[in-house]
Amino acid sequence: MSIRIGLMGYGNLSRGVEAAIKKSEDLELVAVFTRRNPDTVAIRTENVPVLSESEIEAWKDKIDVLVLGGGSATDLPKQTPEYAKLFNVVDSFDTHARIPEHFENVDKASKDAGKIGVISIGWDPGLFSLMRMLSTAVLPDGNNYTFWGRGVSQGHSDAIRRIEGVLDARQYTVPVESSVNSVRNGENPELTTRQKHTRECFVVAKEGADLARIEKEIKEMPNYFDEYDTTVNFISQKELDENHKGLPHGGFVIRSGETSEGVKHIVEFNLKLDSNPEFTGAVIAAYARAAYRLNKEGQTGCKTIFDIPVSYLSSESGESLRKHLL
Amino acid sequence: MSIRIGLMGYGNLSRGVEAAIKKSEDLELVAVFTRRNPDTVAIRTENVPVLSESEIEAWKDKIDVLVLGGGSATDLPKQTPEYAKLFNVVDSFDTHARIPEHFENVDKASKDAGKIGVISIGWDPGLFSLMRMLSTAVLPDGNNYTFWGRGVSQGHSDAIRRIEGVLDARQYTVPVESSVNSVRNGENPELTTRQKHTRECFVVAKEGADLARIEKEIKEMPNYFDEYDTTVNFISQKELDENHKGLPHGGFVIRSGETSEGVKHIVEFNLKLDSNPEFTGAVIAAYARAAYRLNKEGQTGCKTIFDIPVSYLSSESGESLRKHLL
Repeated sequence: MSIRIGLMGYGNLSRGVEAAIKKSEDLELVAVFTRRNPDTVAIRTENVPVLSESEIEAWKDKIDVLVLGGGSATDLPKQTPEYAKLFNVVDSFDTHARIPEHFENVDKASKDAGKIGVISIGWDPGLFSLMRMLSTAVLPDGNNYTFWGRGVSQGHSDAIRRIEGVLDARQYTVPVESSVNSVRNGENPELTTRQKHTRECFVVAKEGADLARIEKEIKEMPNYFDEYDTTVNFISQKELDENHKGLPHGGFVIRSGETSEGVKHIVEFNLKLDSNPEFTGAVIAAYARAAYRLNKEGQTGCKTIFDIPVSYLSSESGESLRKHLL
Repeated sequence: MSIRIGLMGYGNLSRGVEAAIKKSEDLELVAVFTRRNPDTVAIRTENVPVLSESEIEAWKDKIDVLVLGGGSATDLPKQTPEYAKLFNVVDSFDTHARIPEHFENVDKASKDAGKIGVISIGWDPGLFSLMRMLSTAVLPDGNNYTFWGRGVSQGHSDAIRRIEGVLDARQYTVPVESSVNSVRNGENPELTTRQKHTRECFVVAKEGADLARIEKEIKEMPNYFDEYDTTVNFISQKELDENHKGLPHGGFVIRSGETSEGVKHIVEFNLKLDSNPEFTGAVIAAYARAAYRLNKEGQTGCKTIFDIPVSYLSSESGESLRKHLL
């Protein structure tokens, strides 16, 4: 019997989870819930109902794990604890500073309901967190470095689009190669924000817009761009649509440490992703399987990627995993 | 209070664990056991006794985790199940084909004794296994590639030293760059043994030895060299001592997979190690901590790297880990 997955919301991330479910024989998409009018939401899987969020309670016993595809700013802080009262849930909550509070809220709701709530799943937070933790435990005397990119930052792209005179935009976060090489060589540099990443912007402006002003507004935007070396390229909508429509991303976590005087080790985890939401969805799908299996064993409460043995991510038996992958 | 670690054997690997213990505030080396005459074994930590293996039973309640530094061919199949009757144990058993059998033996002994036995810890098997499992679960539609090196293979170095006329030797395993690049580009090549690694040998020959014969014997040695492109360099003992005394190693595990038609992802885990035994020892030390903590919670039996949440590797609380590393 398959593990029955429900999706709350149907944005990029949920579509990524949907794609991952199709690649997994033991997972089955059984329902999609939306705040929009369900009739306006066309999903890619056949014979799966799209329903109003308000109907979800009736699915309490028909869904094994509910994946929450919402945003971290306002959706998940409310939704994850709420739906954890009814379902095993998985989310991708990524507001680092608020994780402790979110954990407590989900933990209480999940425990009360006898369910599992897995939070902050994806690649960062997610796989990158796992690598930081693991390599820090193995090499306690060392430094962690996280680089993101080359990849599209949707938050930065949105910020540019809000500037007067901008029709469309795509922002790429790019690691600074000389800094990456220094880290990989075990030089343990101290790096400023500017030394770690640059920002490349591709901007479609309205006809007649003041390009110099737009460029200045981008480069001086606090938090988003002012601490970075930023380049701005004005291009046509056609060029943007042709060359910048994908959502590639990636990055790497490097731990550089010593086990004794002068004996150095570099541990690197590296991702190159054609599609950020599809890969994130694939990680979430694997942890949805884990949530189901943990709960089936009688475990309850909130879990993060630190708390779940990787064997739970696979549908194979422990015996088979030891034989083929150890 | 520190976690009290005992070491069975005092070879390269045990010295690596000893170095890792020095870097870990919560771990303490309390005794080293040896089959040699203890008076002939000088260890690097002060005020720690070196004792005969036969005295170990008296340490039953004075050691929290016993690390087994022996070899996989004959030592560990016997030692790990035997000492699992007395202690929580960790080993680095690396004969892949015999892992299922070893697991069963250790599982029975550990369960009967109410102890934890962690087997096959290090980087391969070990961290590389973890990465293969994790990335396979996330990207079920894809291929795994493991490359080792550039690094010293002690087994291959030993094999060369057994050839008539050879005084000393060092063998480096080297990944074939064009194959690595093909994998990293997502081309999913099918690679033969020869296409994955080359072997570089540095050999010190006896004066007057037949170098051509030695080179031929190396290159044609079944299993070790015959399936590889091998280069043989004859050098002086002085040069070998000056340039080839270290035990650097490393390698990478790459998963190349698709989440939907044509949407590719590359997941890579990469190690560059100045000292193979010191890094392996550092991984073992972290899993010794996990063994202790798991057993303290009442868990028993055999565990592999697939079964242990990474949070157990750290001395920090779950709360602190979530706050700082998630």
